[in-house]
Amino acid sequence: MTATLPLRAELRGLEPYGAPQLDVPVLLNVNENPYPPSEAVVADVAAAVAQAARGLNRYPDREALGLRSELADYLARESGVRVAPEQVWAANGSNEVMLHLLQAFGGPGRTALSFAPTYSMYPEYARDTATRWVAGRRAEDFSLDLDQVDELVAREQPSVVLLASPNNPTGTALPQAAVEAVLEATAQVPEGCVVVVDEAYAEFRRTGTPSALALLAENPRLAVSRTMSKAFGLAGARVGYLAASRELVDALRVVRLPYHLSAVTQAVARAALAHADALMAQVGSLRSTRDETVAWLRGKGLTTAESDANFVLFGAFDDRHAIWQGLLDRGVLIRETGPEGWLRVSIGTPTEMTAFQDALVEVAGL
Amino acid sequence: MTATLPLRAELRGLEPYGAPQLDVPVLLNVNENPYPPSEAVVADVAAAVAQAARGLNRYPDREALGLRSELADYLARESGVRVAPEQVWAANGSNEVMLHLLQAFGGPGRTALSFAPTYSMYPEYARDTATRWVAGRRAEDFSLDLDQVDELVAREQPSVVLLASPNNPTGTALPQAAVEAVLEATAQVPEGCVVVVDEAYAEFRRTGTPSALALLAENPRLAVSRTMSKAFGLAGARVGYLAASRELVDALRVVRLPYHLSAVTQAVARAALAHADALMAQVGSLRSTRDETVAWLRGKGLTTAESDANFVLFGAFDDRHAIWQGLLDRGVLIRETGPEGWLRVSIGTPTEMTAFQDALVEVAGL
Repeated sequence: MTATLPLRAELRGLEPYGAPQLDVPVLLNVNENPYPPSEAVVADVAAAVAQAARGLNRYPDREALGLRSELADYLARESGVRVAPEQVWAANGSNEVMLHLLQAFGGPGRTALSFAPTYSMYPEYARDTATRWVAGRRAEDFSLDLDQVDELVAREQPSVVLLASPNNPTGTALPQAAVEAVLEATAQVPEGCVVVVDEAYAEFRRTGTPSALALLAENPRLAVSRTMSKAFGLAGARVGYLAASRELVDALRVVRLPYHLSAVTQAVARAALAHADALMAQVGSLRSTRDETVAWLRGKGLTTAESDANFVLFGAFDDRHAIWQGLLDRGVLIRETGPEGWLRVSIGTPTEMTAFQDALVEVAGL
Repeated sequence: MTATLPLRAELRGLEPYGAPQLDVPVLLNVNENPYPPSEAVVADVAAAVAQAARGLNRYPDREALGLRSELADYLARESGVRVAPEQVWAANGSNEVMLHLLQAFGGPGRTALSFAPTYSMYPEYARDTATRWVAGRRAEDFSLDLDQVDELVAREQPSVVLLASPNNPTGTALPQAAVEAVLEATAQVPEGCVVVVDEAYAEFRRTGTPSALALLAENPRLAVSRTMSKAFGLAGARVGYLAASRELVDALRVVRLPYHLSAVTQAVARAALAHADALMAQVGSLRSTRDETVAWLRGKGLTTAESDANFVLFGAFDDRHAIWQGLLDRGVLIRETGPEGWLRVSIGTPTEMTAFQDALVEVAGL
């Protein structure tokens, strides 16, 4: 029996978003951290959840201020920028953080602006919130063209600008001056404009690369989002967060579904945050592997984008799909994404990167 | 420093939704299950999470088919209605299930229809998805007035109708004929109309009260939502779900944020589902306490709505706020909600209900 379902016109015929979840030996396709939690983290997570489980018949702390306070402490240690717990927001993945931002500040009659190539979920967040979506283009080297920023902001009057830094899928970070230029350009939007810097990969940035957190104190329209999925190796736990002005965060509290963050999620995140120092040591090793991978790819005559993330965009290939398929045939799954001809590889363990390199040599005849 | 934030006009000046989270001895305000998970459940939850924690660096199973399959098995045991795993959808609380429904089938230019008094979150789901909200009125005894249903459906052409059964805050369940009448009335909407029966409290229904699950096979526009928050005593874990046609569920898969359900949430829910039989025994005792509470209130000369839920709406009081405050002063927190003059009390343990009764006798001079 088929029904007449009032599915929204813009959703008809669409497939659910997502990279293929294939079962192959070397998974370098979704920028996961290759290192599973240590047994110490596992034990603390299990103990924290057992404790939380004893009260699971009750609704969770709706404000999650304990977690938000510990996230603020972590940000201060990581970046040197201290914000109050009430300036931090947390949700089920930065996915949901972005949804809250667009529910509060985007929506029907509003425009969100970004600059491609960038994270492929952004237009989906816009679609899911009935926000108009406009994408400018990044320059050839994936930096922001500030003249184009000025022009598009003036023309489109966005209420939200989304900037990923380090950007996905390119890995490139924005200089502080570029973020400041966007803040300045958007100051001209009469109804106000929220500038979101998505720093999902910030912990992997190279020495000297700034975090937009440093701009928060002077910019109440700025939101800097982070995640525990990448550096903390907690993609499966779904914890994203952001730092912003208290006023901005308070707006998100209105649109969030009540009790959006489970008591278990809060417990898992807090248990992992207590191990931040050990986890950050692992990040250091991933950064080294990233730099070695970049050097190796360049040594083989390939082009790579400047990466401050835990992945590298490389190319260019006449037939990138054949390269992707050849790697998959050899048990190495990477991602066919980004501008035509480029491929993206996540940084795995040294063993996984050797498997990637060996396969690529064979497939691309390097 | 204050910013010009482009907060949507309909959100300005609003406070975040939610009952007060007060720290008092007897919490009978948000229809929680008063029984914490048993130590057997706690142990299994902790073990399941420890197991899941070892893989938390990876994204969770995006489709959560293991969980959806076990939820289908549970529904078959609970109601006798067997659906396929692909006909079940799960999300972070039935909150998020409703959000997905309105994202797919509501939204700008669409209307959602319900009948008040009913769950106070419904208009918020509509607001958050820019869906127009229309509420008819239930009859004096909180049943649906089917002539009014016909009239409002014809006039408003809703794409979604939301029916809670048992209804919150009244506790009243709909007869199957009423749900069928709504399905029939909405068959006339040319673009299609999804009828959602929110059965968050279904497990507490009295013998002979039907579940709309029995109507699924013949009605691909019907969705029946459930939750693990109430009967399973897992409000803190945030697991809601629904059963519907495969076609309807597939539409929700398009609007869900990828990886919306964490690996931990999936593990907790599956561990608890393995204890469903023991948990349902507890539900039986809550139903008895509910019936005793209704009898006691009526014995004291008060009016109560017919309750198939784990709460009772009772009244009527000239000054309900004074009664609510008097109970709170005596350490008993109930909810000031529903039509003027009525109050709602959740069913707690026998000891908690005695505290409630003693306090009410004092405060109301019964």
